[in-house]
Amino acid sequence: MDSEILAANEAFYDAFRREDAAAMDEIWARRAPVACVHPGWDALLGRGRVMASWLAIMENGAPPIRCVAPRVQRLGEVAFVICEEHVDGGRLIATNVFVHEDGRWRMVHHHAGQIFRGEPDTESLAGPHGPN
Amino acid sequence: MDSEILAANEAFYDAFRREDAAAMDEIWARRAPVACVHPGWDALLGRGRVMASWLAIMENGAPPIRCVAPRVQRLGEVAFVICEEHVDGGRLIATNVFVHEDGRWRMVHHHAGQIFRGEPDTESLAGPHGPN
Repeated sequence: MDSEILAANEAFYDAFRREDAAAMDEIWARRAPVACVHPGWDALLGRGRVMASWLAIMENGAPPIRCVAPRVQRLGEVAFVICEEHVDGGRLIATNVFVHEDGRWRMVHHHAGQIFRGEPDTESLAGPHGPN
Repeated sequence: MDSEILAANEAFYDAFRREDAAAMDEIWARRAPVACVHPGWDALLGRGRVMASWLAIMENGAPPIRCVAPRVQRLGEVAFVICEEHVDGGRLIATNVFVHEDGRWRMVHHHAGQIFRGEPDTESLAGPHGPN
């Protein structure tokens, strides 16, 4: 159900805001392969490296992030949520991928990046591939 | 097999480089829900809007993009590929989600954004959530 996926997505942001390492660990998949792209960074692959990155960020103080307008795209036992992240006056866009594992939805991938412009239209998409 | 997923991922970049609208249309899923986050933009949801965005970009000239270091994360009938995109001297990181639909791997989501820094380490993750 989408409500369970949305709850898992919100639990991720809640754990981050509370800087709760145990809750963050619970959120990520145990068996499925895990990855993460923090805003502007190269990708991290593997549960150990991904969890270490969250611990490092949270130990140094998580910003007051809010998840806005989450939308679920369901693909059977996998789902991804697209949402905005509002933090420190800025807007980011995130893709959060979840897998149904051991009876609950667990995160396997988080990819977030800054939004520089609003929704593209035909005119503004002309030329460069994005806002480079 | 991962090789089939990697081939689908490369076919996406190939269609884009060749500005081949028919090939790009073939690449995206027909039945599964489709979404796309172009670099720096808000998300687009729905096949119609996503395809319109690719047509608009390709009609105005696609940049000579290269997919580098693709890595497959398999989740049963769903898989996502994380890869770098090298274009015009810049580096982007992309998450491409595929679903096995009608006997072939089809794209359901593309999320790309610029890389501003190298791989994070504990020191550089301190403080802000990313490179804001």
